[in-house]
Amino acid sequence: MKPEILQARLESPPAEAAGWSPAEFEAKLRERGRAYHIHHPYNVMLNGGRATREQVRGWVANRYYYQIAIPIKDAAVLSNCPDPVVRRGWVQRILDHDGFELNGIRDAGGVEAWLRLAESVGLTREEVVDLRHVAPGVRFAVDAYVNFARRAPWQEAVCSSLTELFAPEIHKQRLANWPEHYRWIDPDGLKYFQSRVSLARRDVEFGLAFTLAHFTTRAAQERALEILKFKLDVLWQMSDAMALRYGVPL
Amino acid sequence: MKPEILQARLESPPAEAAGWSPAEFEAKLRERGRAYHIHHPYNVMLNGGRATREQVRGWVANRYYYQIAIPIKDAAVLSNCPDPVVRRGWVQRILDHDGFELNGIRDAGGVEAWLRLAESVGLTREEVVDLRHVAPGVRFAVDAYVNFARRAPWQEAVCSSLTELFAPEIHKQRLANWPEHYRWIDPDGLKYFQSRVSLARRDVEFGLAFTLAHFTTRAAQERALEILKFKLDVLWQMSDAMALRYGVPL
Repeated sequence: MKPEILQARLESPPAEAAGWSPAEFEAKLRERGRAYHIHHPYNVMLNGGRATREQVRGWVANRYYYQIAIPIKDAAVLSNCPDPVVRRGWVQRILDHDGFELNGIRDAGGVEAWLRLAESVGLTREEVVDLRHVAPGVRFAVDAYVNFARRAPWQEAVCSSLTELFAPEIHKQRLANWPEHYRWIDPDGLKYFQSRVSLARRDVEFGLAFTLAHFTTRAAQERALEILKFKLDVLWQMSDAMALRYGVPL
Repeated sequence: MKPEILQARLESPPAEAAGWSPAEFEAKLRERGRAYHIHHPYNVMLNGGRATREQVRGWVANRYYYQIAIPIKDAAVLSNCPDPVVRRGWVQRILDHDGFELNGIRDAGGVEAWLRLAESVGLTREEVVDLRHVAPGVRFAVDAYVNFARRAPWQEAVCSSLTELFAPEIHKQRLANWPEHYRWIDPDGLKYFQSRVSLARRDVEFGLAFTLAHFTTRAAQERALEILKFKLDVLWQMSDAMALRYGVPL
């Protein structure tokens, strides 16, 4: 996607071209996974067990800003979407992150689970919640994502969630490697990753089916690929900012 | 509240004045109920049993546009609000209107209940959902409310929900009078009003406590009264537009 300030420029419409088949289009979306932050040196270091306590803590504290932005972003999708069926499904994401109390059922939610992760790596709740550790590069990247979801058509915001295609793998890496390499972390703190493996699968099922059904012309499909690239850039840039602040092995 | 296009003008700050006590402020908010649409001739006609079938149907079909705007408006509040405790309470309003399916519990929601009301007064779902009956005056009023909630600080949007102070009474009027006067309406269709009596009470409990706690200086309290006036105007204008279209006894 072009930088936002360039998007207002008039562009000549792309020449009409036939859309890819859903299978071809899905393959192209999945292909973009090569730019997922699972390949970023900071993540490779983290999940390879070579991070110091400070590097783990820095990641958890910075990533918290992304965690709290997600329900805000999802509420923006809801607020832009007039389709009650989509809303009824999408609101589940907000409940997952914020938690809920409904008809006697209580769920503390993903943001709370993240705070427990933070405590288990030796951060205080206070220093995480007040965002003192959040690097400006992380903040600007996350804000770009929220602003995109606020201003883009909701269908594009749905498409931008497709990095979830690649999320179960990165969570499984953490679950497989962290307990072995970081014995100083209370394993109870890793529950967030466990819950996200299945939730990300459920969420992306809708996001992918919707994207394949909605982006059907070639121009729309190329736009969808650009949007996915933008979201991959958001995650990559977060890792860049953390690598710059906390260091990364050469 | 001033018309939106005048609000960008610079204003000299009002002279400092002490805030009213919470009890005084609450009395002033409640006093505004004299401009609630319960007193509008169209509502007086409706709830007094003097409306024709066309006037009842016109009201139900037009008011549907307000019903579907409410979860959009509430999602805008969510999206503007960084406080997870407030969000966890506020999301309940979206679930109430859109319905939900969660841990085996299913609620069809208020918008669906409204569609059942529509059917019970002899409208088809289709002619309600496609908004063909919605008068431009109704649309612009509802849109003004949604746009306010999107752009105002979330605290002001919470304050704008305070017309719920007066809502249980208008729903109780409907429940008391409609079955007697409009025997042609399937009483099953009136369940929406029944559910809103308790939900509006629960909702306004938070909205009022929050407004009393948050708007504490005299200038802020006057702003809150302006916001409530704006919201009362939205509802009143909807009735005006319906009266103009469907007629009202002189």
